[in-house]
Amino acid sequence: VDGSIPDYQVSAWLMAAYLNGLSDRETLALTLAMRDSGQTVDWDGYTGLRLDKHSTGGVGDKVTLVVIPILAAAGVSILKMSGRGLGHTGGTIDKLESIPGFRTDITVSEAVKQVGKIGAAIVGQTAALVPADKKLYALRDVTATIASIPLIASSIMSKKLAGNPNAVLLDVKVGDGAFMKDLNVARQLAKQMVLIGTGAGVTTEAALTSMDQPLGRAIGNSLEVIEACDLLTGYGEPDPIFYDLCIRLSARALSMAGIAQSEENSISVVKALIANGAGANKLEEIIFAQKGDPKVVRNTDLFPKSSFVVHVVSNEEGYVKSIQTKQLGMLAMRLGAGRETANAPIDPAVGIVLFKKVGDKVKTGEKIGELHLNSMLGSDTHVRELLSSYEISTTKPKKSLFLFEILH
Amino acid sequence: VDGSIPDYQVSAWLMAAYLNGLSDRETLALTLAMRDSGQTVDWDGYTGLRLDKHSTGGVGDKVTLVVIPILAAAGVSILKMSGRGLGHTGGTIDKLESIPGFRTDITVSEAVKQVGKIGAAIVGQTAALVPADKKLYALRDVTATIASIPLIASSIMSKKLAGNPNAVLLDVKVGDGAFMKDLNVARQLAKQMVLIGTGAGVTTEAALTSMDQPLGRAIGNSLEVIEACDLLTGYGEPDPIFYDLCIRLSARALSMAGIAQSEENSISVVKALIANGAGANKLEEIIFAQKGDPKVVRNTDLFPKSSFVVHVVSNEEGYVKSIQTKQLGMLAMRLGAGRETANAPIDPAVGIVLFKKVGDKVKTGEKIGELHLNSMLGSDTHVRELLSSYEISTTKPKKSLFLFEILH
Repeated sequence: VDGSIPDYQVSAWLMAAYLNGLSDRETLALTLAMRDSGQTVDWDGYTGLRLDKHSTGGVGDKVTLVVIPILAAAGVSILKMSGRGLGHTGGTIDKLESIPGFRTDITVSEAVKQVGKIGAAIVGQTAALVPADKKLYALRDVTATIASIPLIASSIMSKKLAGNPNAVLLDVKVGDGAFMKDLNVARQLAKQMVLIGTGAGVTTEAALTSMDQPLGRAIGNSLEVIEACDLLTGYGEPDPIFYDLCIRLSARALSMAGIAQSEENSISVVKALIANGAGANKLEEIIFAQKGDPKVVRNTDLFPKSSFVVHVVSNEEGYVKSIQTKQLGMLAMRLGAGRETANAPIDPAVGIVLFKKVGDKVKTGEKIGELHLNSMLGSDTHVRELLSSYEISTTKPKKSLFLFEILH
Repeated sequence: VDGSIPDYQVSAWLMAAYLNGLSDRETLALTLAMRDSGQTVDWDGYTGLRLDKHSTGGVGDKVTLVVIPILAAAGVSILKMSGRGLGHTGGTIDKLESIPGFRTDITVSEAVKQVGKIGAAIVGQTAALVPADKKLYALRDVTATIASIPLIASSIMSKKLAGNPNAVLLDVKVGDGAFMKDLNVARQLAKQMVLIGTGAGVTTEAALTSMDQPLGRAIGNSLEVIEACDLLTGYGEPDPIFYDLCIRLSARALSMAGIAQSEENSISVVKALIANGAGANKLEEIIFAQKGDPKVVRNTDLFPKSSFVVHVVSNEEGYVKSIQTKQLGMLAMRLGAGRETANAPIDPAVGIVLFKKVGDKVKTGEKIGELHLNSMLGSDTHVRELLSSYEISTTKPKKSLFLFEILH
């Protein structure tokens, strides 16, 4: 960070770490050095339990928008620093910025004050924290050394630890729509991050969860925030897997925080916080504190809307056997919901809504999904792409279990 | 070389090549790309057989100074591009520059003309040939990727091939005084270089030879040139191993060139070229062509001399069991004969002469060697170092065979 090690030596070291791996001790040492490469969050005088939650990212993953208000409503403090989307995956910051007026560029000390007042803040990553990660990541990007478990684990955990939390809950996504396609590799990454967190003296758990189909129904920024608001306000029927994951992750976090005793107890606390509107109210508070319009939570018509909605209907009959998740993430990106290169502009309103998920029965002519577009240029291609990402089988597929494995 | 690949990507690639190795095909492709990164020697219209000879370097290795005049006298053409010494090993260019007036900085086209006229030229490496090697070596030096067989082999062979020879004879040194301490590693390097040369369509052979004691008696620039001149002029009794190696390498080269038929025949041709003074005459011609004083060959008093000669006598009796060769090379460097860092100045006159070699009987008080010094500062330490590099045993050691293994 002070420039004393030239890039060509760092990149040679990165390649050595990529090819030979790092021991657990080396990975922890690297992570702590990265954490200490810049400012860390100062919670001076703050005594509440501070939890952080992180997802390794996927398609349609808006869980953070549900879990954080619930936890804050339960008395857990969360300063969540989030990233932007890249490629087929979205980013929480992009999603929140689809709320009119919402600011994510607030300083760390402002965010700490907000957490003290209302229990939560969701802000963009600041260059003041873990500047080493930015340098290392930039070099990894151009030296083909991204896909390294210890380098990924140290990158994620250094940023978590710089927030000085008491507990960290990680959601490690596995499957076609995740960065980790392979369960064993994802499990290794999860274990490595738990080892780092624990080694740094922070209670750390990792959930391994499925990303073999988009999470929930919406893919795209305002569409995903709407889905999260609807879950919290109880509007409509939520996607069962999305609902289940939000409940289980929130419950797990409450157990880690010592707020609920048994798993059953945690789950009923979380359900109650949704049912009594406490979660939705907390989301309104967060939005209000960050200069957004809190009315969007209960009136989602206030979100930016796309000019066109194209209904996509099935041309065959049967059961949804699989959905090519990464392909749909890339389609959403091309519609304008994501970005191919860092800093490219995005369109908050566009995206995809899916009405059929794996295992669902579908008839010829029945609506599979919607494309929310601001231009009809190439829309026929987009429709074909959405259809081609679905595999329809004539026999009812065996119900695939949603993976939920906790490592700690 | 055109700057289009940034250093940080080259060094990541170097580390990958260092850790995972390169296939034979990759190594050949790299070598040819390096050869073609700059100018190559243009022998337009030149029909004679062009041989190149290369030693991987050691302590007291002045073989080039003997072999090249002999081969040129036998009608083989040699454009020898040599390097400077670094660390414990000397360099041919430094040695030749101890000859008053001798110029090594002549251009490639001048050198080609000289080879056309008298059959040989010995010049310094030019930046116009294989500029990729200079860049890669500089990065290897600062990324701990020097010790890689394919990277070493491609570095050496690209420079040989850029000279456009018809045949290459490599002398790969093995032992304490060489870069390769291990016979198997040295054999791998030799094989790799032979594969590259052959793959590039050039007749290539490698001799694996011992560097477990200094070669010959002299270590230091003018002292080594004097030893080479004495061998060619028949002055005094040459060190038997040094003499033998010069004869065998020269004979091998004559066989490669098709000048002599059998090994026996080659050896007698080489011996005749020494006995009849043709080798010494050719060395005079080379020195004259390169603006040096040719009289030094037959009157070695014309070489620069050190101010002091310290006689070092044995304080024990027995047989020389071993000589720490690298330690002696480093001692010679510290006396001023070599350099610790590139471009450091050297002193042509200083060095070490050894009167006892492995297997020799030595009595208490008998002279083991001489230190040729231009300052007596620290000379007592130098004497102790010379003595400590000798292991004297009371029993006569088994005669260790000098390694001479040919790979082709």
